[in-house]
Amino acid sequence: MSAFADLHRRGAPLLLPNAWDYASAAALFDAGFPVVGTTSLGVAAVHGLPDATGAARAETIALTELIAGLGMVTVDIESGFSSDPAQVAELAVRLSDAGAVGVNLEDAMMAPEILCGLIEAIKHSVPGLFVNARTDTYWLGDSSLDETLVRAESYVDAGADGIFVPGMTDPDEIATVVEQVDAPLNLLFLPGKHTVAELAALGVSRISTGSLLFRAAVHATVATALAVRDERPVAPGVPGYGDVVEMLGL
Amino acid sequence: MSAFADLHRRGAPLLLPNAWDYASAAALFDAGFPVVGTTSLGVAAVHGLPDATGAARAETIALTELIAGLGMVTVDIESGFSSDPAQVAELAVRLSDAGAVGVNLEDAMMAPEILCGLIEAIKHSVPGLFVNARTDTYWLGDSSLDETLVRAESYVDAGADGIFVPGMTDPDEIATVVEQVDAPLNLLFLPGKHTVAELAALGVSRISTGSLLFRAAVHATVATALAVRDERPVAPGVPGYGDVVEMLGL
Repeated sequence: MSAFADLHRRGAPLLLPNAWDYASAAALFDAGFPVVGTTSLGVAAVHGLPDATGAARAETIALTELIAGLGMVTVDIESGFSSDPAQVAELAVRLSDAGAVGVNLEDAMMAPEILCGLIEAIKHSVPGLFVNARTDTYWLGDSSLDETLVRAESYVDAGADGIFVPGMTDPDEIATVVEQVDAPLNLLFLPGKHTVAELAALGVSRISTGSLLFRAAVHATVATALAVRDERPVAPGVPGYGDVVEMLGL
Repeated sequence: MSAFADLHRRGAPLLLPNAWDYASAAALFDAGFPVVGTTSLGVAAVHGLPDATGAARAETIALTELIAGLGMVTVDIESGFSSDPAQVAELAVRLSDAGAVGVNLEDAMMAPEILCGLIEAIKHSVPGLFVNARTDTYWLGDSSLDETLVRAESYVDAGADGIFVPGMTDPDEIATVVEQVDAPLNLLFLPGKHTVAELAALGVSRISTGSLLFRAAVHATVATALAVRDERPVAPGVPGYGDVVEMLGL
């Protein structure tokens, strides 16, 4: 089992913050997080591209090449940026060669056979790459626990190393997926809906922040500019120029 | 006088927030700022490059091409990314062609004749591009008002449209530069040192945020991740996924 896979522990989940550029990744590693994921919204948005449309393949590869040397990195590849298993396998090889330890691959409610084909193609080409298979049953679908279980089990059968169900919040449903699916369960942290400790107690193995940190950064950008304009105090704790340069290792 | 130049008014300064990628620029325009500058620290840092070393020329051009269609954009070009006036003029042409309305060019305490040569080269090639000439007498030098005045006057004689003196905070010194130099004065906003209203009252024509917003974004990124980890509330006001997509026009 890889060092990254080993961090997925039931009841002692890996908290995975998600970055979108060199600075956010370097800052998160500097803060002590052992692994950094990427957020497809953030990666697309900083380049002016729409999320979840397959538009940011080149930018995702370039970012991985830039940050995978900083520490363990797992990459959000949307639905593989292609429906062609050979193309998705080629992408996985490139990301692995760049140093990535895992990928996150979402079904976007496509027929599950399609995602199974992509998972199999990746695991055939790069067996050691941790494939986190995301089902969007709660995020985009009708929140069916039964369908979630069927999809999750088929992805695990296809070789997925972990299952991600963003949007699932019901404690009983979470516990059921943990119990019935033979792979670590990853959930999306939703502020106000639950705490890390609560999700840990339910047996979750990994907790992602998704686009939360990117959205917090955009918010801070605008809020700080408006604070200057409106003569309100700037948020406390903002590091100085030299401190940021040191934090980011530049 | 260009629409951008016309926004430089003594006593009613243009507040210029500085962006570093598509998302930060789009968010600032969405918040109502009429002009967005760039910050060389931010542009370099998101690509893992050091600031003020001339390393991020290509990234600066690419960013300008990405954001200049969103609104009026003025570009931080460090010291021109080259000491060759022809190279700097070629850069200015590319940025102007991309839609930029101005550039910020810093002397980094080089002999003032060198910056004058770069200013003349830019104004010869792109007369309509607003050249904000920055002297680092306070930022990197020994904070000499006399040297600041000498440099500022020489840059104006070379064709600079505005003068930027980051780090200058003394009200009497600010008022002296406003009175003696025949060009709009730009200052760097330093939280806790002064307010926009105070700088306006001294006759300042433009106030930049420099790297402040970028540093606030990096800070918010890490602070939010740590808040999740440590079970503290996430900063209020962070927009949701759909709100950010709409804000950024993606």
